[in-house]
Amino acid sequence: MKIWQKDINVDTFVETFTVGNDRAMDMQLAAADVLGSLAHTKMLNSIGLLPDEDLNLVQQELKNIYKEIEAKQFAIEDTVEDVHSQVEMLLTQRVGEAGKKIHSGRSRNDQVLVDLKLYFRSEIQHLVAQVEALFNQLIALSEQHKSVLIPGYTHLQIAMPSSFGLWFGAYAESLVDDLELLKAAWKVCNKNPLGSAAGYGSSFPLNRRMTTTLLGFDDLNYNVVYAQMGRGKTERILAQGMSAVAATLAKFAMDVCLFINQNFGFIAFPAHLTTGSSIMPHKKNPDVFELIRARCNKIQALPNEIALMTTNLPSGYHRDLQLLKENLFPSFQSLSDCLEIATFMLDHISVKDDVLNDPKYDYLFSVEVVNNEVLQGVPFREAYRNIGLAIESGTFQPSKEVQHTHEGSIGNLCNEQIVRMFNEVKDSFGFEKVDQALAGLLR
Amino acid sequence: MKIWQKDINVDTFVETFTVGNDRAMDMQLAAADVLGSLAHTKMLNSIGLLPDEDLNLVQQELKNIYKEIEAKQFAIEDTVEDVHSQVEMLLTQRVGEAGKKIHSGRSRNDQVLVDLKLYFRSEIQHLVAQVEALFNQLIALSEQHKSVLIPGYTHLQIAMPSSFGLWFGAYAESLVDDLELLKAAWKVCNKNPLGSAAGYGSSFPLNRRMTTTLLGFDDLNYNVVYAQMGRGKTERILAQGMSAVAATLAKFAMDVCLFINQNFGFIAFPAHLTTGSSIMPHKKNPDVFELIRARCNKIQALPNEIALMTTNLPSGYHRDLQLLKENLFPSFQSLSDCLEIATFMLDHISVKDDVLNDPKYDYLFSVEVVNNEVLQGVPFREAYRNIGLAIESGTFQPSKEVQHTHEGSIGNLCNEQIVRMFNEVKDSFGFEKVDQALAGLLR
Amino acid sequence: MKIWQKDINVDTFVETFTVGNDRAMDMQLAAADVLGSLAHTKMLNSIGLLPDEDLNLVQQELKNIYKEIEAKQFAIEDTVEDVHSQVEMLLTQRVGEAGKKIHSGRSRNDQVLVDLKLYFRSEIQHLVAQVEALFNQLIALSEQHKSVLIPGYTHLQIAMPSSFGLWFGAYAESLVDDLELLKAAWKVCNKNPLGSAAGYGSSFPLNRRMTTTLLGFDDLNYNVVYAQMGRGKTERILAQGMSAVAATLAKFAMDVCLFINQNFGFIAFPAHLTTGSSIMPHKKNPDVFELIRARCNKIQALPNEIALMTTNLPSGYHRDLQLLKENLFPSFQSLSDCLEIATFMLDHISVKDDVLNDPKYDYLFSVEVVNNEVLQGVPFREAYRNIGLAIESGTFQPSKEVQHTHEGSIGNLCNEQIVRMFNEVKDSFGFEKVDQALAGLLR
Amino acid sequence: MKIWQKDINVDTFVETFTVGNDRAMDMQLAAADVLGSLAHTKMLNSIGLLPDEDLNLVQQELKNIYKEIEAKQFAIEDTVEDVHSQVEMLLTQRVGEAGKKIHSGRSRNDQVLVDLKLYFRSEIQHLVAQVEALFNQLIALSEQHKSVLIPGYTHLQIAMPSSFGLWFGAYAESLVDDLELLKAAWKVCNKNPLGSAAGYGSSFPLNRRMTTTLLGFDDLNYNVVYAQMGRGKTERILAQGMSAVAATLAKFAMDVCLFINQNFGFIAFPAHLTTGSSIMPHKKNPDVFELIRARCNKIQALPNEIALMTTNLPSGYHRDLQLLKENLFPSFQSLSDCLEIATFMLDHISVKDDVLNDPKYDYLFSVEVVNNEVLQGVPFREAYRNIGLAIESGTFQPSKEVQHTHEGSIGNLCNEQIVRMFNEVKDSFGFEKVDQALAGLLR
Repeated sequence: MKIWQKDINVDTFVETFTVGNDRAMDMQLAAADVLGSLAHTKMLNSIGLLPDEDLNLVQQELKNIYKEIEAKQFAIEDTVEDVHSQVEMLLTQRVGEAGKKIHSGRSRNDQVLVDLKLYFRSEIQHLVAQVEALFNQLIALSEQHKSVLIPGYTHLQIAMPSSFGLWFGAYAESLVDDLELLKAAWKVCNKNPLGSAAGYGSSFPLNRRMTTTLLGFDDLNYNVVYAQMGRGKTERILAQGMSAVAATLAKFAMDVCLFINQNFGFIAFPAHLTTGSSIMPHKKNPDVFELIRARCNKIQALPNEIALMTTNLPSGYHRDLQLLKENLFPSFQSLSDCLEIATFMLDHISVKDDVLNDPKYDYLFSVEVVNNEVLQGVPFREAYRNIGLAIESGTFQPSKEVQHTHEGSIGNLCNEQIVRMFNEVKDSFGFEKVDQALAGLLR
Repeated sequence: MKIWQKDINVDTFVETFTVGNDRAMDMQLAAADVLGSLAHTKMLNSIGLLPDEDLNLVQQELKNIYKEIEAKQFAIEDTVEDVHSQVEMLLTQRVGEAGKKIHSGRSRNDQVLVDLKLYFRSEIQHLVAQVEALFNQLIALSEQHKSVLIPGYTHLQIAMPSSFGLWFGAYAESLVDDLELLKAAWKVCNKNPLGSAAGYGSSFPLNRRMTTTLLGFDDLNYNVVYAQMGRGKTERILAQGMSAVAATLAKFAMDVCLFINQNFGFIAFPAHLTTGSSIMPHKKNPDVFELIRARCNKIQALPNEIALMTTNLPSGYHRDLQLLKENLFPSFQSLSDCLEIATFMLDHISVKDDVLNDPKYDYLFSVEVVNNEVLQGVPFREAYRNIGLAIESGTFQPSKEVQHTHEGSIGNLCNEQIVRMFNEVKDSFGFEKVDQALAGLLR
Repeated sequence: MKIWQKDINVDTFVETFTVGNDRAMDMQLAAADVLGSLAHTKMLNSIGLLPDEDLNLVQQELKNIYKEIEAKQFAIEDTVEDVHSQVEMLLTQRVGEAGKKIHSGRSRNDQVLVDLKLYFRSEIQHLVAQVEALFNQLIALSEQHKSVLIPGYTHLQIAMPSSFGLWFGAYAESLVDDLELLKAAWKVCNKNPLGSAAGYGSSFPLNRRMTTTLLGFDDLNYNVVYAQMGRGKTERILAQGMSAVAATLAKFAMDVCLFINQNFGFIAFPAHLTTGSSIMPHKKNPDVFELIRARCNKIQALPNEIALMTTNLPSGYHRDLQLLKENLFPSFQSLSDCLEIATFMLDHISVKDDVLNDPKYDYLFSVEVVNNEVLQGVPFREAYRNIGLAIESGTFQPSKEVQHTHEGSIGNLCNEQIVRMFNEVKDSFGFEKVDQALAGLLR
Repeated sequence: MKIWQKDINVDTFVETFTVGNDRAMDMQLAAADVLGSLAHTKMLNSIGLLPDEDLNLVQQELKNIYKEIEAKQFAIEDTVEDVHSQVEMLLTQRVGEAGKKIHSGRSRNDQVLVDLKLYFRSEIQHLVAQVEALFNQLIALSEQHKSVLIPGYTHLQIAMPSSFGLWFGAYAESLVDDLELLKAAWKVCNKNPLGSAAGYGSSFPLNRRMTTTLLGFDDLNYNVVYAQMGRGKTERILAQGMSAVAATLAKFAMDVCLFINQNFGFIAFPAHLTTGSSIMPHKKNPDVFELIRARCNKIQALPNEIALMTTNLPSGYHRDLQLLKENLFPSFQSLSDCLEIATFMLDHISVKDDVLNDPKYDYLFSVEVVNNEVLQGVPFREAYRNIGLAIESGTFQPSKEVQHTHEGSIGNLCNEQIVRMFNEVKDSFGFEKVDQALAGLLR
């Protein structure tokens, strides 16, 4: 059944090609689709386009469908094109004529637009919660191991003393900045496109402000042409937000793979969390972190894919936009899995606490020695030259005491400031307002 | 002169390869470098590492150099590696020993980091101003032509009535959301990395909070390992912010190229703003918009380039990061040029005001006719079928009156709301605080 | 069952994360895996590592499994990690101890490498056949409509006369060059990695030249470290080959969407091959071509995704490489679908044969008129200026006769040369040699 | 001077924006532009459009200009738009009216197309020569150090014995496959677009086969619409060819940076070829290889940039295509520099020849021990389990003898086969034919 079908049969071949994976993808939009219809029908009623009795029937049944979706009892039938048709068909089967009236003042286009924004909001909210769990884990490890020193590298050359406190804490702070990108995505998502119809508005006297409030949006996508233009753009911005978190995770995974390597040997995981080899019985491979890295690099490729699929398309809807779902939707689950398993793995990490006893790390302390001379009045360039000559002649003697006291240094990690910054960004999303609005709709 | 040169000559071949275009790129960092040193030396003085008399000499001379940079009287000499060495050399030539002391408690790494952040902040501020000029132009055109109808397309098929008011206004509103991305970039840039040294902190009792205030930063990059990790990441996020604006401009340029094409013929520019052909004397080509499109699509490729150059590098500085300047720095000028010329061109655009008189656009009004039947009580699906059959049988009669009244529709553009949203985002950057801090440093 | 499992249970959470979609992806490697084992076991026998009776048992059963795969009677069980384990398990169930011996002298790594190369070869061969079908369709349409003129555009401005003959023929010739890229991918794929073990070779006296001949490879990946390094690289090169074809298809689809637009109106498709709108009953949308465009642009993003996932990984296998399957494998089907449906749609295309009667296209002929003056002795620049002034003053008179005779022009399409070039590239792949070798293995 | 300028002054602002960096980029096309005109004018003469005396004047002067270009005595004046206008202006200044006639039967479009193809051919030829030098260096090092063992890693975990012979040889063989991509680019470049005019052919009776022969092209871009469509596509394919070489170099550079790191310590370079630190006097940083890596990853981003700038542009020329030069042209020099300096650096590499004496590498030999048991009749799975248990219990005893004899293994590198493959691909380009044709043109 296709609702735009007139008296002409669409060739099955064409249909299969055009529908593609839509049914599978659309399942993720089901809850959002019902929420959108709950708001839309209340608004239709308020402007006289849906009688009270129809509204009541429709609202009650939409809430039932919502519960079925939550209970995993909802499916898109093979003969139905997409989630929107499925919901409408169920509704019409159950409440009759009233179900047919809910499409007034709405096009498939703005219905999809609002579904996507609601779905994206919910995914962002979910991701932020998982980012927070990982953040807390990293802060806790940073505090726990703050006095354990490791080498710091520049150019991948042994450079200066670092610490596990710094290393874990750095990735925690990285997540704070990543939230700023997710926040930008949230701001772009949190505006209401409903009422833009096919991208050119409607002759019905829609009350777009009412649906904005009902759905907990911050504001409207006012201009209806822009509301439609948000398709593709919203996806790209969201993918950029995800890729910020992904880039942090991928870099962390690279560090882990390096530090677990036997030439470094700074960290370890229990055997049951690593993987063996079909040919080398001694191997304990960090597959989890290699796959975190790979998955996250894949997510980093997403914004570019979306750009390539949308660039140079003139304004107005194009079917191309529908295909953006295919790699974007599964990325939510993929990134969520990565965050979850990274947090889980870190619960089992062990760190080596005597790394710097190895004499190959002695040169780490050369800057300390230079600085000590400077503090005793030697000009920097001269002290630098002295130590350089000592190193070359093999007479360099490290003083292994590290007395870093300034903000963010080994001896003063400022993790409480990093936590404060995290909370400030997190609180600025305003998730509660959204939660309350949606709870109100479903009440 | 290379300040890390000990007694070994670096092969010229290697030096040419490694220095690359750095001198040219670094010219853009000159002002930022002086600002950073102004703050760093004040802080050194406050912790007893730079005597008052040296501070006075150094501050005065740095301000002189700043004026020379502003007056375009500053250059990086061929024998000098980069802007940082050039400034330090000038200083030492002019104030003697005091100039050599300013590198205490600072590494080339955090010096570059803070220079980049200061430079990026200034470029973002500049871009936002130009975005605002284009935004105002688009809003003005939207208001001016709000009653001129054009076809709206979906699937590039004639769909429903649109208007120049909607078209111009849509791109204005697009810029509002783009600012959110620039804002995220601004937030990431507006934290102080100075004091992180080579990425592992310093044994000097630096007062990082003091330089944060002096340079007008919102907060610190606390963790010194993270401060270093911001290199590459900051560039990527900034490129994403720029690419948001670029994507809007590129799409607009595509629309212009389509609408100026003779098969559409909706808009025109005066002959002196178009380009001729060496072989076809009738051509008036929209080269400016084609090049806006191309430049902006090139900018859209930047974040991916940066990702490719930084992905899978473990934490800690790598020389690779230096090469990120090469395509990023010129992009500021390129995007700025695009914004400026787009605003300029729009000052000369003329629109055709009777486009819809052509009968090929009659079908635009089919939705209106469907909706009219619905408003008279016909169920939507039935009305839709009726009009569909009328169209197929050739009996369809359009009613060319467009009565759209809801928010953001042809008859109710809500441009004042869009302006309000723009101003809200713009004001949230907090440029004044930064301006005041920098003015204070230079006073 | 995991064959590298010793006495330690791998946490289910980790297992689910690491196995991911492998089972689904691996189904496509099943036939290749059996072919690889057929060759490997013959070779093992030849060097005395598999007795004749074991070889016979194993060969017969592998051929049975191959038939089951072809008959879609093969599946990877939920308790089995991947296709390789599944085949080995089936074999051991059916032939006992002999089945366990076939892994000698082989690592999972080179087994996957050879499976991928065999699979990719088969997909390339399949794609080339489909490219040929589309090529033939385009050449036929070019010949059929060679005398039907249309406007040619530059800068999307009406420029000079073109023809359907040129338009269809251009895309045919484009596919010729695209084959060169697929050919490069084929050359890279058509070298034998088997025997490289985990990327460092084997102490068994393997006869790699024998498996090379048995599997119909052109040559070996000699160096075992390079054989392993081919993972990721082969995928990237193959994706580039696919993206060449995809770019041609996407561009063609863009042209179709433009030419079917009512402002152009050059071509049409029957109603049952276009798609309607849920809100505008007159719409006949070119969804098929929009989705060809989108799918092909998605494929164009693949090489970059692979680059992002593999860049900066040091030599040697990394688990990341396994994830490359996820977007690459489905792309074969997707590109194949696009080629098939494009060929199908073109079977139903109708072209408008009087496009140039519309006076707006008169200027198309200005170059002809300039050239006519030149042929009569007027210097080019002067003739150009004359016609330019005539156009500006409105006195320009077109001569609508097009007399282009040189190679590749409207009157001399040279399609037979284009066909010759296509066949030359196609024949150079050497598919027959591969077909014969594989037939020999399965006999 | 702009040759398409009629009586209207183009605004300087617009001109600056549209010309951009073209003059600088165009300098690289100068030689190719003259070559194209040498062939074009001979052909014009052969079809009666350029009298013999004019031809002689023009040919002689073009050859003079060619010599000036080679002697770096050629420049594009500030008042001249591009290289094509500059050459034509010089010619007209020197030979008068005859110079004005050479533009007959040619558009700026096909002139640029043929210039690009000639330029690209010459750059490919240059790159192949440099690839060969690096290849030879790698083969020589592989032979020189073939008996020096190092650890082989999988998952970045110590896995099996490898050798410097394998490591250097692997990158040599990688270059063989990379040549296949450069070859595909060469094939696409080596077809003649001249005569396609503005993409729609010409009413002049051009002899395109003649210019094809004169310029040494293999064949024609027959279809004139396709000839134009080659713009952008050729660049993308060429960038893919370059990115194949770049990917190999980048990966090699990553290995170098890892192996020179003190935790690995497998290789070293003399101090004057590494770089120091402004703060750490003991550092000897591998900046050259970091910058090879970065430059090559930047080149890897090029194909995607080109795709983003050309995707979804309908057929026919667009000004966007002109901007493709900006990042592509400098990449030739950049990749060339990388190849040259990599070859140079490898001339000074030293390798550590006792790496495997460190007991942490003992486990490398576990597979050998498993295989030895298998060769003595123990089933593989059982042997694997035995050694695994020995490793876990700490009783594992390595036998450090490596007896790999099969093709491509430590004991049988097959470098002569790799050299043979390299030469086969190199010889198939057919550079001599091109060299001879161009020499003939300039004689």
